[in-house]
Amino acid sequence: MTMPDPTVAIMSPGDMGHAVAAMLRAHGVRVITCLEGRSPRTRSLAEQAGIEAVPDDDALVREADLLLSILVPAQAESLARRIAAALERTGKALIYVDCNAIAPQTARRIGQLVEAAGGRFVDAGIIGPPPRTGTRTPFYASGEHAKSFAVLRDFGLDVRPVSQRPGDASAVKMCYAALTKGTTALMTELSVAAERMGVTAVLRQELSESQQAALERMIGNVPAMVPKAHRWVGEMEEIAQTFEDCGLTPKTYLGAAEIYDFVAHTSLGTVSPEQWRDEGRPFEQVVALLAKER
Amino acid sequence: MTMPDPTVAIMSPGDMGHAVAAMLRAHGVRVITCLEGRSPRTRSLAEQAGIEAVPDDDALVREADLLLSILVPAQAESLARRIAAALERTGKALIYVDCNAIAPQTARRIGQLVEAAGGRFVDAGIIGPPPRTGTRTPFYASGEHAKSFAVLRDFGLDVRPVSQRPGDASAVKMCYAALTKGTTALMTELSVAAERMGVTAVLRQELSESQQAALERMIGNVPAMVPKAHRWVGEMEEIAQTFEDCGLTPKTYLGAAEIYDFVAHTSLGTVSPEQWRDEGRPFEQVVALLAKER
Repeated sequence: MTMPDPTVAIMSPGDMGHAVAAMLRAHGVRVITCLEGRSPRTRSLAEQAGIEAVPDDDALVREADLLLSILVPAQAESLARRIAAALERTGKALIYVDCNAIAPQTARRIGQLVEAAGGRFVDAGIIGPPPRTGTRTPFYASGEHAKSFAVLRDFGLDVRPVSQRPGDASAVKMCYAALTKGTTALMTELSVAAERMGVTAVLRQELSESQQAALERMIGNVPAMVPKAHRWVGEMEEIAQTFEDCGLTPKTYLGAAEIYDFVAHTSLGTVSPEQWRDEGRPFEQVVALLAKER
Repeated sequence: MTMPDPTVAIMSPGDMGHAVAAMLRAHGVRVITCLEGRSPRTRSLAEQAGIEAVPDDDALVREADLLLSILVPAQAESLARRIAAALERTGKALIYVDCNAIAPQTARRIGQLVEAAGGRFVDAGIIGPPPRTGTRTPFYASGEHAKSFAVLRDFGLDVRPVSQRPGDASAVKMCYAALTKGTTALMTELSVAAERMGVTAVLRQELSESQQAALERMIGNVPAMVPKAHRWVGEMEEIAQTFEDCGLTPKTYLGAAEIYDFVAHTSLGTVSPEQWRDEGRPFEQVVALLAKER
């Protein structure tokens, strides 16, 4: 396939979607989306980012060469159904790239939906921060059409095909997030527990003597997690599903989901990322405030 | 209290108990134990370590100034009942130090048992490896008699009184183990999941690029955990109980207990620590072998 000037649909443009769109735009790619039913604020942000809004899903799939699904995990499957319906109506053989943090089994189910409607499916998993110049943000990709997604390497995305099998890219993403976000969940839980039991100072001293590296990660990662906790709940549930599908216990990550759900429902968890950054609350204060809420 | 030459009872002399006994013995302390119903191997090991066996619990509490309970968590409470009965029979006001990895609530319950029988209770939590010259092995201690336990500072033990409240030392231990052994549980689970899903190589490459420090800990800590997994199951359950008592989810650590229970029941988990050390299996091989077992 030659695709010198691809048109890329992004659904839906949130934090990650916007950064991907900006990167592609900076490399001359036309980026489109469908904002039916979305807020005026979302429309205005998309316009500012140079994302072109098309009137409906049928127009979206007709005009796009690739569609990137970038959502919270719970919405991945319903978007796939919506787009599959548009593919059936239009007969378009779109390349559908699911970039969400979902279990491999979920990714394969979405792949079947898309392919049954005539689309070409790519399973992808994004690791790292929203891509900007200087960030390291690999897009792992698997499935027989992963190479078609890899054309976006020429337009600023670090796409890394890993295998012919849909689900493998999601598997890498799940295991990676299990390590990073799973560890942060444990650190959050044990810090809040220590605070509620009144042993924060002794624990802190012990960790500073014997676990300095872990203590530094706690101090950095727990506060940074707070405004993202609501988004991580679903991701932890997908990891639990992934590991259960492998014959392992889902409890660890169902527990991690509960920890993030707890944080998301505190007064801190509802502050916007911008406000959170501006307030710059240190670790000790975050833990003390979380410990006071039930 | 003046106690220039204390007699210390250790129940029961396992890996940790033996090291503690050896340290005390090296500092001139008489160490006794009661081996009723124990194997000839245990008796012979105790004798080699210079631990004096007394015939029964009544003799044990009569001759000891302090008793250190060093067991797997599940046995902590039943030993306390046994010793409480001996205290009642003998009228001895022994200092009973529970050094086990148990929930603060469990420690306080044991304290009530011991004090109702006329004993003086100290809650303790051991952090680090069995104490030997050059190791860092603090014994955190709490409760009004913690200072009486601290006399053993003069005999080679790094006893650190933290508060007047029984349970605080156990709380520190629980939170510390939640970090170290909890993280190792996650690392084990995600490594086995990656192997079963066939993405070990891609994950390894990603971690080596973006999470080098965590990868190094995985490579070191997962193999080292294997021969200890059976002992860590109960400790994870105590952490789950501790956190639930704080109003947090117990699921994360019930999951960690299941992971260690899985490892303990594989063919690797039943190898002796000595044999395990001699075999020196590397991380990749351990994960591959665990992944094959169900």
